[in-house]
Amino acid sequence: MDLAEPAIDVHTHYVPGGWPQLDCADAPWLRVETESEAMLMFGTQEFRRIQSTCWDAEHRLADMDADGVSVQVVSPTPALFGYHRPAAEAARLARIFNDLALEICAPAPQRLLPFCQVPLQDTDAACTELERCLAAGHAGVEIGNHVGDRDLDDAGIATFLQHAASLAAPVFVHPWDMPSSPRLDRWMGQWLTGMPAETHLSILALILGGVLDKVGEDLRICFAHGGGSFALWVGRLDNAWRERNDVLGTSQHEPSHYLGRFYVDSVVFDERALRLLVDTVGVERVLVGSDYPYPLGERPAGAVVRRSTFLDAAERGKILHGNAETFLGRTGEGSR
Amino acid sequence: MDLAEPAIDVHTHYVPGGWPQLDCADAPWLRVETESEAMLMFGTQEFRRIQSTCWDAEHRLADMDADGVSVQVVSPTPALFGYHRPAAEAARLARIFNDLALEICAPAPQRLLPFCQVPLQDTDAACTELERCLAAGHAGVEIGNHVGDRDLDDAGIATFLQHAASLAAPVFVHPWDMPSSPRLDRWMGQWLTGMPAETHLSILALILGGVLDKVGEDLRICFAHGGGSFALWVGRLDNAWRERNDVLGTSQHEPSHYLGRFYVDSVVFDERALRLLVDTVGVERVLVGSDYPYPLGERPAGAVVRRSTFLDAAERGKILHGNAETFLGRTGEGSR
Repeated sequence: MDLAEPAIDVHTHYVPGGWPQLDCADAPWLRVETESEAMLMFGTQEFRRIQSTCWDAEHRLADMDADGVSVQVVSPTPALFGYHRPAAEAARLARIFNDLALEICAPAPQRLLPFCQVPLQDTDAACTELERCLAAGHAGVEIGNHVGDRDLDDAGIATFLQHAASLAAPVFVHPWDMPSSPRLDRWMGQWLTGMPAETHLSILALILGGVLDKVGEDLRICFAHGGGSFALWVGRLDNAWRERNDVLGTSQHEPSHYLGRFYVDSVVFDERALRLLVDTVGVERVLVGSDYPYPLGERPAGAVVRRSTFLDAAERGKILHGNAETFLGRTGEGSR
Repeated sequence: MDLAEPAIDVHTHYVPGGWPQLDCADAPWLRVETESEAMLMFGTQEFRRIQSTCWDAEHRLADMDADGVSVQVVSPTPALFGYHRPAAEAARLARIFNDLALEICAPAPQRLLPFCQVPLQDTDAACTELERCLAAGHAGVEIGNHVGDRDLDDAGIATFLQHAASLAAPVFVHPWDMPSSPRLDRWMGQWLTGMPAETHLSILALILGGVLDKVGEDLRICFAHGGGSFALWVGRLDNAWRERNDVLGTSQHEPSHYLGRFYVDSVVFDERALRLLVDTVGVERVLVGSDYPYPLGERPAGAVVRRSTFLDAAERGKILHGNAETFLGRTGEGSR
């Protein structure tokens, strides 16, 4: 695979290599097993085995060099959002992790761009933490796609999005907290079908809840995993918007009108799927994302973009790096 | 729109215009409001307002003539499956509705092909009712995509699928009984994101549960609504199958190997989405479906197939009627 043209990967995750002991219920901690391997724990529960790629800049940079990646956006691992916790506790957790993210990215500030997390259950606290992080060197914010029963159209979350737009902070939306059931709890069903459905539902909420009618076009928002299943179902949604009273008139325009108002990443693995994204949300709105360093991710990052024959060189360049420069607000700056 | 080439619509629904009073909990009944309108009730609950298109062959045939549809598969409305009921009660309900479906279709036996319902919670009873219906004139069977926590890989359901294959009965799988939550219970979320996710999950179960390894290639099975979100995520699934122990080795081959083993309908409303289906499951495996006569359906049936410019005439013919002839087992017969 030709890796000469560098990619900007807007969808990667980190977990710090350690942090102060937290005094809260089901506190996250790291059970270090070897120099390069650890178990992310919540209280006594094993959550996920992780490698030093999660916290070691040298390891990440070596993988980036091998994969043709110039820049990574380094975002929190959603399990650590803490939106279900008391707000003050989540705010404290966010501050600790956000400061550690800066440390992880410090060895290569031009190549590793930290995105912060915020206590989204408390709008004021979330806005405050975002401001603190942007001042400290974060390049944007990752949020979960919902807070319990509150979706992206919730008044508090919409206010946060508006605030991020006013600060020119790009927002990366990641699905998390997927429903569980005996049918979904097999074969990674929560990840394989749950995550795409979660993101699909949250884009519905953003549109039908009128958020894109209220929030200005200066909001730069990107959805993980190709925007979930949304692109496949925008026609069904338009039809419902026209035909069904339950949906009619919820947004000012029919849902497909809002295509172009949000970005999606490219981590769909399949050229046919990528083509749907490009044809639907637009070639200016698809960015490389990989889900690095987790095993459901794509290696090398952007492989599907590099090998897709339906793209010409200019389109491929947009998806590999040009659109990400716009999303990140780096256009014309060269580098940050 | 040029409607000269006739379409076979494999995805339509009926509700009888009346039936004997049922002595069971939350019994379905029809509150007739005018000659052409009624409310489908469950006990004291209003479920859906329906029109005489649901039960009146003349009305259906007029719409078919206007829409360029030569043949409709006439399937149950999933809310009436009764899989949550005691098996004997569901079997009785199935017999009543299946016999009424024959009456509805009787005025045009070459154009209205009834698909039966079965009490899928009881494998023996389901096989028995399928046999009875095929002998009485049904052309196939519609099933829901799950029975409570049992998905399509459940031993009893797999046995039923094998039995349908042995009887050469086509099987149409429709999502139903979608999860409910405050976020899903707005804006038809259960229909707009829930249904595509349900079908996606059930195709996962069919593949990863090894059903397609066990059941022969004589099983003719079709999934409603384009197969849900499956086509968009087959690359993510293949990657998980290769990389994650939780999924590894569950099916004999990687999931994309089984593309070609099932049909999907065309009711995705959007040329870009239809192209993904054709490119992924194959041009021989996409059939016209419309969801007639419900308002989330497509009118005229197959409009997206007729207007899609990426199809040549031969491909369009396959999707409009050729593939349906194969699915229905009518190849070479002219008509049934």
